[in-house]
Amino acid sequence: MSAPALDCITATRAGRPLGEAAITGLVTGYLDGRVPDYQLAAWLMAVTCNGLTLEDTTALTRVLAATGQQLNLRELAPFVADKHSTGGIGDNTTLVLVALLAAVGIPVGKLTGRSLGHHGGTVDKLEAISGLRLPADADEFTKALTATGIGLTGQSDHLAPGDGALYALRDVTGTVDSIPLIASSIMSKKLAAGASACVLDVKTGPGAVLTDPAQTLELARLMVDIGNQAHLPTRAVISDMSQPLGYAIGNALEVAEAVHALSGRHVPGLTDLTLALAELIATQAWPNHTTDQIRHRLHTALADGSALAALRRWVEHLGGDARQIDAPALLPAADVRLPVTAPAGGTVHRIDGDELGRIAAELGAGRARADSPVDPAVGIQLHVRVGDPVRSGDPVAELHLRTAHDQAVLLERAAAAFTVADGPAAAPPLIHHTI
Amino acid sequence: MSAPALDCITATRAGRPLGEAAITGLVTGYLDGRVPDYQLAAWLMAVTCNGLTLEDTTALTRVLAATGQQLNLRELAPFVADKHSTGGIGDNTTLVLVALLAAVGIPVGKLTGRSLGHHGGTVDKLEAISGLRLPADADEFTKALTATGIGLTGQSDHLAPGDGALYALRDVTGTVDSIPLIASSIMSKKLAAGASACVLDVKTGPGAVLTDPAQTLELARLMVDIGNQAHLPTRAVISDMSQPLGYAIGNALEVAEAVHALSGRHVPGLTDLTLALAELIATQAWPNHTTDQIRHRLHTALADGSALAALRRWVEHLGGDARQIDAPALLPAADVRLPVTAPAGGTVHRIDGDELGRIAAELGAGRARADSPVDPAVGIQLHVRVGDPVRSGDPVAELHLRTAHDQAVLLERAAAAFTVADGPAAAPPLIHHTI
Repeated sequence: MSAPALDCITATRAGRPLGEAAITGLVTGYLDGRVPDYQLAAWLMAVTCNGLTLEDTTALTRVLAATGQQLNLRELAPFVADKHSTGGIGDNTTLVLVALLAAVGIPVGKLTGRSLGHHGGTVDKLEAISGLRLPADADEFTKALTATGIGLTGQSDHLAPGDGALYALRDVTGTVDSIPLIASSIMSKKLAAGASACVLDVKTGPGAVLTDPAQTLELARLMVDIGNQAHLPTRAVISDMSQPLGYAIGNALEVAEAVHALSGRHVPGLTDLTLALAELIATQAWPNHTTDQIRHRLHTALADGSALAALRRWVEHLGGDARQIDAPALLPAADVRLPVTAPAGGTVHRIDGDELGRIAAELGAGRARADSPVDPAVGIQLHVRVGDPVRSGDPVAELHLRTAHDQAVLLERAAAAFTVADGPAAAPPLIHHTI
Repeated sequence: MSAPALDCITATRAGRPLGEAAITGLVTGYLDGRVPDYQLAAWLMAVTCNGLTLEDTTALTRVLAATGQQLNLRELAPFVADKHSTGGIGDNTTLVLVALLAAVGIPVGKLTGRSLGHHGGTVDKLEAISGLRLPADADEFTKALTATGIGLTGQSDHLAPGDGALYALRDVTGTVDSIPLIASSIMSKKLAAGASACVLDVKTGPGAVLTDPAQTLELARLMVDIGNQAHLPTRAVISDMSQPLGYAIGNALEVAEAVHALSGRHVPGLTDLTLALAELIATQAWPNHTTDQIRHRLHTALADGSALAALRRWVEHLGGDARQIDAPALLPAADVRLPVTAPAGGTVHRIDGDELGRIAAELGAGRARADSPVDPAVGIQLHVRVGDPVRSGDPVAELHLRTAHDQAVLLERAAAAFTVADGPAAAPPLIHHTI
């Protein structure tokens, strides 16, 4: 047992601030074994129940960021952007955003993890492109970033490894869904990456990490405050996850959709969210530009083919088959396609993205364990969004699958994920808040 | 890690009840090593921050009570009373109460611990009597109780040992001052003792376990509720600790004061509190008696010498020198007595019992470690209580000490514990609440 740790526990329990030195002592003490796990567990629960001041949360974030490699992405170019999403169904925004920003001359550096469960990771999506190999070390990462304006790798484990140790304890002590602990966990990786500025996409809705809108807003505000306190200028949007983003769920399907959006065609949800995030980054990269100038430049890059060209350049640099960008039909494709039909006519009132995500994962698009392979070809292509009219028997989606699955059960489950009823319906606004 | 333990943590954190089976699994799992300490630490902090339902607190108390010996004191006589005090300065109430109850035919069985710090334990007080040896086992305890109406032993470690293990973890995780955890800890020993009824003396004031009056009331109510839910009829008083109880602090001094009170002389505080506690017990022992009848019988036992005779019988049974009861001047006495004088004239506004307790402990009346000896002779005899008028230079107390101490410093500290000022002053009522 550690007496300073006990002081930290009692102070946090009483709502008193600890200060940077005490937080540093507590967390480094836990990581090097001087503070026993039962004391850190008690402190984590005190934080979960009573909260933590902004200063202490920022101090926690800094000490976690300092537990591993510190990258200083901002030294690789005059301005390097970073982006984080709390994760959603069919969320291929990163693919579109990094190419769009690279096209307008804003480099993006992003270290990401391979996702578990039905939230497919950006790395998995990219690897649907034949031959593509992501940077395996810092050197390759830097080369890609300087050559193409896009640095992206799955090696986020090197960043803030102390956060992983803390998370393992949170996972078994009922302290995962604490706003200061979530915020410091996410932002510790961002501080360790060290970009010039950061934009956060915080999802709200049934499939999000936090389901309560007020808590989601609190989390987003706290992450923005931490970033700004720690000299990483940070903005955030709270975006809607009450239905899947865009129309594609599955790795190759989402790459094809990203190509679609980067070709200048408007993909509802995906295009809008990408532009909102890009605008927040560009506002920081170009402080002297007006909003109109920024929007014009972003729209132009989508319309004139330069955004798609940026994706093509990047894929080529990584050894990927660029013909699959020119013709997404060449991407890995599933053998079987089954239409999901509307059981009745009316308006689409609800699309259960969580259930569709689970079905896509069962088809092979997601992974149950960290070392499971994913199938790039399988997934679900949606044809409708909330508010669209449908007639009985209309296809509302298409399952892309291998033959092995029990097709009848999956079709039934997929159909049940769409609620069609009389009367008008409208989805919530895509962007709930911008911070 | 244990999945059921994680469920308990998240439920308690969310304010949901666990139920007896889950609580039992959690606590027994911790005690036999299936639930790791970090999970119990997180649960204890969730209880400390968010509370615990009465049913769950009662279940926790029951499972702790079942971790060791179960005594069933109530089988030793038609009615056996138990008493607990949360501890105070100069609190010799137990000595007076057990003799008074024995004198009116209500046996008392009480297992107590040796106290640490400046709250001297009842066992230490009794052992100031030459030759007295407390029952060392259950057999001797039962013999004393049936022969004299008083069973008292320091062997409380055999009761609810699981509470000791839990307390050790609470002590290093900032979860000591949680009302449900304090209540279940105290009541687990009472349930394990298994008396017919129990009376609790919950202290309030600067030297008490809980200093906030509202929390003290909550603790007392909760302990009464636990007792009644667990079929141990329980009553409580909340008694004032804003000044020492009675006039004596120190083992032999408190025995002499108890003899004084049992001889029928009114000792302010001590006599009043003893009568209040005795009345609550007698009300349960004699449900058909009126309050007036009960009070008359108790006052008579003090006035006619039968209460003192009960103490004398008990001391003789335990091999103690009964002449010291007849003539307390024969009790161990200190070599040096130094008057503490009032620095100015006026009214006694405040007596810092905590500081006097610390001084008495430094003189040797208390123990710093569990295996330290105590000196029966030393202590502090007070001459005044709050509200008494004094003239400058009047003795307000007398230190009883060995010669080794730095007398000037101790005298100065003792004098500073008395606040004398102009204008009237009154202590709070002795009994704040009866539950």
